[in-house]
Amino acid sequence: MVPQELLERIRLRLEESFVGIGAHVAELADVDVADLVNELTLQEGAAVVSMLPVVRAVGVLDQPSLRRRSAIVEQLDPGRAGQLLEQLSADQRTEIVREMGQLERRRVLPKLSAAAQAELEGLLQYPPHSAGGIMTTEFVRLSPGLTVGEALKHLRAVAREKESIYACYVMEPETGRLLGAVSLRDLVMAEMGSPLVDVMRRKPVTVAALDDRELVAQKIAKYNLLAVPVLEADGRVVGFVTVDDVIDVLVEEQTEDILRMAAVEPGLDKPYFDNPIWRVVRKRVGWLLLLFVGGTLTGTVLRHFEGELSAVVALSFFIPMLIGTGGNAGAQTVMTVIRSLALSEIRFRDAWKVVLREALTGLTVGVMIATAALGQALLTGASLTLAITVALTMLAICLWSTAVGALIPLVAQRVGLDPAVLSAPLITTMVDATGLVIYFLIAKTVLGL
Amino acid sequence: MVPQELLERIRLRLEESFVGIGAHVAELADVDVADLVNELTLQEGAAVVSMLPVVRAVGVLDQPSLRRRSAIVEQLDPGRAGQLLEQLSADQRTEIVREMGQLERRRVLPKLSAAAQAELEGLLQYPPHSAGGIMTTEFVRLSPGLTVGEALKHLRAVAREKESIYACYVMEPETGRLLGAVSLRDLVMAEMGSPLVDVMRRKPVTVAALDDRELVAQKIAKYNLLAVPVLEADGRVVGFVTVDDVIDVLVEEQTEDILRMAAVEPGLDKPYFDNPIWRVVRKRVGWLLLLFVGGTLTGTVLRHFEGELSAVVALSFFIPMLIGTGGNAGAQTVMTVIRSLALSEIRFRDAWKVVLREALTGLTVGVMIATAALGQALLTGASLTLAITVALTMLAICLWSTAVGALIPLVAQRVGLDPAVLSAPLITTMVDATGLVIYFLIAKTVLGL
Repeated sequence: MVPQELLERIRLRLEESFVGIGAHVAELADVDVADLVNELTLQEGAAVVSMLPVVRAVGVLDQPSLRRRSAIVEQLDPGRAGQLLEQLSADQRTEIVREMGQLERRRVLPKLSAAAQAELEGLLQYPPHSAGGIMTTEFVRLSPGLTVGEALKHLRAVAREKESIYACYVMEPETGRLLGAVSLRDLVMAEMGSPLVDVMRRKPVTVAALDDRELVAQKIAKYNLLAVPVLEADGRVVGFVTVDDVIDVLVEEQTEDILRMAAVEPGLDKPYFDNPIWRVVRKRVGWLLLLFVGGTLTGTVLRHFEGELSAVVALSFFIPMLIGTGGNAGAQTVMTVIRSLALSEIRFRDAWKVVLREALTGLTVGVMIATAALGQALLTGASLTLAITVALTMLAICLWSTAVGALIPLVAQRVGLDPAVLSAPLITTMVDATGLVIYFLIAKTVLGL
Repeated sequence: MVPQELLERIRLRLEESFVGIGAHVAELADVDVADLVNELTLQEGAAVVSMLPVVRAVGVLDQPSLRRRSAIVEQLDPGRAGQLLEQLSADQRTEIVREMGQLERRRVLPKLSAAAQAELEGLLQYPPHSAGGIMTTEFVRLSPGLTVGEALKHLRAVAREKESIYACYVMEPETGRLLGAVSLRDLVMAEMGSPLVDVMRRKPVTVAALDDRELVAQKIAKYNLLAVPVLEADGRVVGFVTVDDVIDVLVEEQTEDILRMAAVEPGLDKPYFDNPIWRVVRKRVGWLLLLFVGGTLTGTVLRHFEGELSAVVALSFFIPMLIGTGGNAGAQTVMTVIRSLALSEIRFRDAWKVVLREALTGLTVGVMIATAALGQALLTGASLTLAITVALTMLAICLWSTAVGALIPLVAQRVGLDPAVLSAPLITTMVDATGLVIYFLIAKTVLGL
């Protein structure tokens, strides 16, 4: 956290003149300068970054917590922007350029070295959510003829880049094919005279350049890796993805799933206030309209039972409560099943066991809530038969919504849909209409309508 | 994935006799043996583990993907179980013992070395969700008087444990106070003769032993660390948490948040099928009953407007659709705001800007859905005035539920509650009753009831 007082002081400086900001910022760590820039307006933040020495500015741009990075780089003088981009690691550089406008790209990119431009062009080809789109390209290439001591010497000579410690790959010199991976630890612990090929791990875990980044994250988590090499279709190593890139992926993907479950299309990559309202509306209105159309079914059911409703108006008093509880019980099951699918605790072949289990849970929960509903109905003056109708319906709806809520994510995954897309609202809407049918059928029987 | 055929072959072996399983499993990687054991029953899995050589068995128990670890260890012969636990790293050992029954602990723990027992006892004191509860204790202690070369030599002598590469800490020999941290990379890249104190990073990022593991995960993610040292209140280093422990924490915590948002109390640490139904019911019924009580408010509102309902029964046809859409629009806003709070894109001091923005989104979305509702009402035979009532209510409810949905997570965070606890169902229930009041007030005005 940046102290409020320091923030005020820097704001004042920015209003008066730019002189002396360096002194205020000098004692802050890079990550704190990033926090500071996040607090400032875009113009102010860019001014602060432009006044830092190059090394500090690169350090600040390298912070994962820094927001609006591309916008900040766009605000800088093109020469300065190019200088900073040049110093950043290839994956960070690509991420920043990816979000820059065409005009700004044309201004800034010519300032980069030819090598950086070529590399950038190659990386921009990969989709942003693929392994290629998030990989770093500066790994250490070792040739299989070296000894451990020679490899370490080579490492000391070439490794200025902090990420390179993660990944040393032994490659066939001519073809670039991956022979094995060796960690810095393996090298330090081995005898200096041993051949490298005896120390390296053969057949390391790899990913393909076009694999989805979520798959990459899963592999790194499953095998407890620090880094995983990225291979092109022809078997060449083109880069690697590190565990800290993957942490950001996991956080992003999971918060996206939360949005999906609430029937919001994700895909707004910008921070909250930077998204135009019409884009937010577009991400939400489609699902809402779909759910609305589903919701009109409830009206059809009610119109069909208009006679019963007119005869006993009190029937309508319990409708929101009944379908609300059904929706909630269904949502609990949906989310539990989605989570267990995500953690691979259950599979499609367990479907009937899962449905049975959830229905049993629904039945137990239903008995408790039905008892509460019976009491509540009687207390608010309903007749005994109406109260019994409400209680029986509550029980039936809990049973029904948990069974449906268990089956739907399982079926979704089976047919290749992301279960998280089948949001709780969708289940709720589906359970609403059927719940009403159950209600009126029970009412007709018990009340003799 | 374990091929189905291999699984069958191993199952057959287990039924006949145990001879020859080793050969079937020998060529599999540890992680694949873990997958295999996951596929088998507990007894079969334990049989496979017990037949592996100790090194392989430890490797398999070390896999994060292995489920039922504690149960498997409990199934083993106590001597064998102790042997395997002794070889595991301290954090894994503690995690396994934490979930073992008292009886099994008394059988197995005496088989451990005195050092391992003492360490285990110390680690079991920390709450399981604290930094101390997930930390590893086998880090490399360096004394400040060493040169880089001497430190590397010491490292080569003591570092058999794979996790120790993450964390070399320079400590005051008498007090155990942390002076600095140094990575293997720093050591390899530095001049062999340099004093260690010139190479180490002073004031590294640290966490306290009782800090929540989620905070630890956030620090590691924010500062892009491989490991973070854990300090006791007196400043002594007692262990460290690595980035791969944190990945598991992030995945668990986030899936827990998803459950919370669906009104399920998390805290069932076991895999899906291993939880007794009554425990599952207990985790769900509390929230459902609370929401049920909130839901009975809708009945009160409806009873209050009984006259209007009897006069125009068709009013009731639109109730589920109206409150359903209101709930969905509210849930979209709640989840968006919770996500932006989690990513620190917004803060409490932005509250009014957020509410205004969400209300504006709600208004825009509301106009579209209200138009659809107007058409739908007219098509299904409602009078023009009733259709206008429905459309106006739809607009008002969208506006209202998005504004409330924006405000509530912000207020929750302000008063120190986890916004994720304020699940979408809670908001839906709150919006239901108020939405009905809006509906009947508009109906009274437009229809002149």
